[in-house]
Amino acid sequence: MLTREQNDLLTQTGPGTPMGNLFRRYWIPALLAEEIEGNDCDPVRVQLLGERLIAFRDTEGHIGLIDEFCSHRTASLYFGRNEEGGLRCAYHGWKYDTEGNCVDMPSEPEGSKFCSKIKQRAYKAVEAGGLIWAYMGDPDREPPLPNLEWMGLDPEKRFISKRRQFSNYLQAMEGGIDSSHVSFAHRFNLDDDPLHSGTEGNKYLKSDTRPKFEVAESDGGLLIGARRNADEKNYYWRITQWMMPWYTIIPPFGDHNPMGGHAWVPIDDETCWAWSWNYHPTKDFGEREIEAFDAGDGIHVKYKPGTYDPLASAENDYLMDRAAQRRKETFSGIAGIAAQDFSLQESMGIVADRTKERLGTSDAAIILARRRLLAALDDVDSEELPGLDPAHTSVRSTSILLPRDVPFQEGAKDVLAVKPGENFYSI
Amino acid sequence: MLTREQNDLLTQTGPGTPMGNLFRRYWIPALLAEEIEGNDCDPVRVQLLGERLIAFRDTEGHIGLIDEFCSHRTASLYFGRNEEGGLRCAYHGWKYDTEGNCVDMPSEPEGSKFCSKIKQRAYKAVEAGGLIWAYMGDPDREPPLPNLEWMGLDPEKRFISKRRQFSNYLQAMEGGIDSSHVSFAHRFNLDDDPLHSGTEGNKYLKSDTRPKFEVAESDGGLLIGARRNADEKNYYWRITQWMMPWYTIIPPFGDHNPMGGHAWVPIDDETCWAWSWNYHPTKDFGEREIEAFDAGDGIHVKYKPGTYDPLASAENDYLMDRAAQRRKETFSGIAGIAAQDFSLQESMGIVADRTKERLGTSDAAIILARRRLLAALDDVDSEELPGLDPAHTSVRSTSILLPRDVPFQEGAKDVLAVKPGENFYSI
Amino acid sequence: MLTREQNDLLTQTGPGTPMGNLFRRYWIPALLAEEIEGNDCDPVRVQLLGERLIAFRDTEGHIGLIDEFCSHRTASLYFGRNEEGGLRCAYHGWKYDTEGNCVDMPSEPEGSKFCSKIKQRAYKAVEAGGLIWAYMGDPDREPPLPNLEWMGLDPEKRFISKRRQFSNYLQAMEGGIDSSHVSFAHRFNLDDDPLHSGTEGNKYLKSDTRPKFEVAESDGGLLIGARRNADEKNYYWRITQWMMPWYTIIPPFGDHNPMGGHAWVPIDDETCWAWSWNYHPTKDFGEREIEAFDAGDGIHVKYKPGTYDPLASAENDYLMDRAAQRRKETFSGIAGIAAQDFSLQESMGIVADRTKERLGTSDAAIILARRRLLAALDDVDSEELPGLDPAHTSVRSTSILLPRDVPFQEGAKDVLAVKPGENFYSI
Repeated sequence: MLTREQNDLLTQTGPGTPMGNLFRRYWIPALLAEEIEGNDCDPVRVQLLGERLIAFRDTEGHIGLIDEFCSHRTASLYFGRNEEGGLRCAYHGWKYDTEGNCVDMPSEPEGSKFCSKIKQRAYKAVEAGGLIWAYMGDPDREPPLPNLEWMGLDPEKRFISKRRQFSNYLQAMEGGIDSSHVSFAHRFNLDDDPLHSGTEGNKYLKSDTRPKFEVAESDGGLLIGARRNADEKNYYWRITQWMMPWYTIIPPFGDHNPMGGHAWVPIDDETCWAWSWNYHPTKDFGEREIEAFDAGDGIHVKYKPGTYDPLASAENDYLMDRAAQRRKETFSGIAGIAAQDFSLQESMGIVADRTKERLGTSDAAIILARRRLLAALDDVDSEELPGLDPAHTSVRSTSILLPRDVPFQEGAKDVLAVKPGENFYSI
Repeated sequence: MLTREQNDLLTQTGPGTPMGNLFRRYWIPALLAEEIEGNDCDPVRVQLLGERLIAFRDTEGHIGLIDEFCSHRTASLYFGRNEEGGLRCAYHGWKYDTEGNCVDMPSEPEGSKFCSKIKQRAYKAVEAGGLIWAYMGDPDREPPLPNLEWMGLDPEKRFISKRRQFSNYLQAMEGGIDSSHVSFAHRFNLDDDPLHSGTEGNKYLKSDTRPKFEVAESDGGLLIGARRNADEKNYYWRITQWMMPWYTIIPPFGDHNPMGGHAWVPIDDETCWAWSWNYHPTKDFGEREIEAFDAGDGIHVKYKPGTYDPLASAENDYLMDRAAQRRKETFSGIAGIAAQDFSLQESMGIVADRTKERLGTSDAAIILARRRLLAALDDVDSEELPGLDPAHTSVRSTSILLPRDVPFQEGAKDVLAVKPGENFYSI
Repeated sequence: MLTREQNDLLTQTGPGTPMGNLFRRYWIPALLAEEIEGNDCDPVRVQLLGERLIAFRDTEGHIGLIDEFCSHRTASLYFGRNEEGGLRCAYHGWKYDTEGNCVDMPSEPEGSKFCSKIKQRAYKAVEAGGLIWAYMGDPDREPPLPNLEWMGLDPEKRFISKRRQFSNYLQAMEGGIDSSHVSFAHRFNLDDDPLHSGTEGNKYLKSDTRPKFEVAESDGGLLIGARRNADEKNYYWRITQWMMPWYTIIPPFGDHNPMGGHAWVPIDDETCWAWSWNYHPTKDFGEREIEAFDAGDGIHVKYKPGTYDPLASAENDYLMDRAAQRRKETFSGIAGIAAQDFSLQESMGIVADRTKERLGTSDAAIILARRRLLAALDDVDSEELPGLDPAHTSVRSTSILLPRDVPFQEGAKDVLAVKPGENFYSI
């Protein structure tokens, strides 16, 4: 349970807010690279942390990420012409380069100096790992990019999607941190996922439905261990990670299946991007897996045509099927891992009212993640913020058997580190 | 005309408001029984007096009416599983019985006592007369159920529907209290209704279009008499009733036609349920009448498929037909008694601004009903509140000829009382 | 750039606001005459300056423009019956004449005097030039009607349309005042318009894309001159006008093409009517032109069926065609002169935030227009307000070659005056 003030602090990320200032210390997943493919591409609208922006790639291939609204008379640059080294406003022809410099002002007389006085707000944006990353903070403090394992892999070994979620980012991210709901919300769907074919781990997940949760701090965030009884000597540990400020990763069922993960990024305080990825460090995806990704299986979704909005939504009651719920095909009547999550998360209201919740021991990771975020607000200017160092995001999740007397963070330490070129370990 | 403060007092019914406290002294029509038919039925969303609730019937047939949002992390219980004696949240499996007790908490370790500390807000709900009734007030002061005549009849003798109205409850209820508009809004539709075939009363309704209204207090609310000239010796009285807190009843044209009535129940302060019933104390409905009910005739409506929302709505201009209006098939261009009323009521705005109205003598009943409601606010803790005693709702309406020198409430006294098993009197 | 206070002053026009008071000194284009055609026509809803009204024509042909909501119980008179000299409310039959007098109150007893005490708010409305004009100000100060040239022409010589714009009126009107955007937003569409076939003027427009703007005060508002180099001795001047409070006119390309113009009238502070007209003082429109008007060419639009809302809208991204933008068929990807304007204007937000703009020399006319409007607020009671005298609106626009040393307002003076029966001059 939070106070109203704490809830506001954690959920408000616009310009000038404490959490907004903190998030602006980090690189932000902004777009799929394919959204601004090719030089002089079509400009696209992007909203991040409450700021409305336009992204484009100029004639040289440089990426522009600038204020959506022209400095002149505030018309949207979405209607602009992207050509010859910059984006030209469709209203009076003012033109901006990728750094926000006004490079042409054809509505003013020859010789006018007005152009040189105009600077459109612009943020640095780079491509890495198939995504466009934005940095919206103080240019003098730009950190290195995160180093999530899939960012260094060939495209054949990763699949990344995004979907819009109609709630504040925090309740979405808390769903990613929360290992406990898997046994319930997804209970009847752990086997039928083409990306999670039956493994040893599945067996323990089903035989012990009341895992004991242990949470440990990592350099970048939290190590979350769900402990189940395996045999007399061993526990079965399913270990997920949360890395500041918004990354969560989940282990595969067996090392032949892909690792999964998410980034939970505020669009504004009422919607967020749920970024979802699968990857395998040593194996290209096969036809079966690519079909599954494209079909919106696993942690991905089917879309409303022409959008990144899920087909299942509040308006259509998330395509609720009570008969399937009764037949135990789904736990909540909603189909799909992702929709099972966001239907419940959106049902909490646009911003969940955390003054009313009653948290149990299974919520320990959520409680600690909130605490780390709130603590980071006091260190907002520090170079030591968790998650800033690329090493903090260069980590793996795992499922592993460990002797009962070995602490999970010790026993799994070796397999939680990224070893480039080597497969991960997960049963 | 009301002051702004009076208008707010009368129209705001959420938790903690004065009118909300008053309404919570009474049983509330909440659902059609068919909406939660059968043990372990699908849970359904219900909103009453601004509170969002979930209704379900458990394995034993007990009715649950509990807070929609799980005590744990505020996810909606709408997605829950209703099985084995309670409703289980789809997020982490917390399970509640019909009294709101947490009876299972599978996400917590074996032996945890946390479950016993959790109590989901729950209201008492019972089935009577084909409806589910809710009591949302102080459990120590639960009154007996109302005793509207149809509640004791066989289903073959009654038909009950509900529709959502997109306005505050008060302007809807005032339409039910207001006998005067019948001569105008419904003028061209008094004959063509299959439920109101021509009678003696119709003749007087048309020959004298300026009735004189008299209003008398009844035990439960108001007796509203519309007096028309019949012959030299007699008046024709059409007597309707309003019973606290939200019931209105209207007499049939002739004792072979059904009695009608309504309950006007706040969903929140911007929408309300208009409950509508017809019944006949001694006669099963025939095929013609059942067809008419199902077709949305009389005081019932045609629906948008899959909803309780009328097909005619603000978005489609209530299916306005100016040509029919010119041909005097309808007075306002809108078809159907119910739509004729709610189109006008919704046109006043979500909450009618009663600081701007100019009331005449024909509005006497509305004025007195408001006065009784406001007066009841001062007696909110009294056991003598009008409408609490089941006898207050066990009443009838009538149309009757009375000698000119006989006060209507005296002359009609006998026929306004319910006589079980006996037909009502109405010409 | 404006202060927040100035922006509020200029954009808020509801009852009691300073700009609302100013605008109520003028006649207001309210409806197309065809919207209330014929005596006892269907009543229609009209909203002007934030006030919701009903317009109708009575049995004698007099025009009524009265408060939408009945004085009795605030139901909408839209549902009313228009017959026998007045509009009768559908709820209880109160009837109003075109002056707002209550002329019948059938719900009250015979002999009641209540009717005579009721006065529905009513505004004077007259027909002129194919439009219904409203006067919402002090009846004692009613000015003469404006005298826009087309108001005196035969219907065959004019075409007038209206469309709803989803923004505050001011940014729409500023688009009409702004001559500079024509070279950009409409750049690729100056030739292909059937109403603007190639002329001498077009040649200069294209050869000199950086006109020099000069703005001069006129009696009614502003003369806006865009100066381009023509030859060694002459300038090519394109002169448009803004007349208080909301009229803008633009010259034809050649005197065989029609003059164009607009009125920008607040519906409320979030939407406005863009009135658009073409006319020719000496020539009936031909088949080709009428087809073009009906097709929504030029400054007119295609509509959503059954509405005055443009087919191109924010919901459908204004039917953006990036391929056409790349092929230089359109500058912004949006088709149609009107949609090119309103897409950009609506993109500024409901009310443009003028505290953020950066104005250049090409914005001089906009700056001066705002200044005249703000100055007029101080003279709101004056009989000398610009635009009140019909002579102020009896003016023309033109395109003209003038010797380089002749001030444009002097050199063009003769051709800027309306000469009834004589063609205008424009190259």
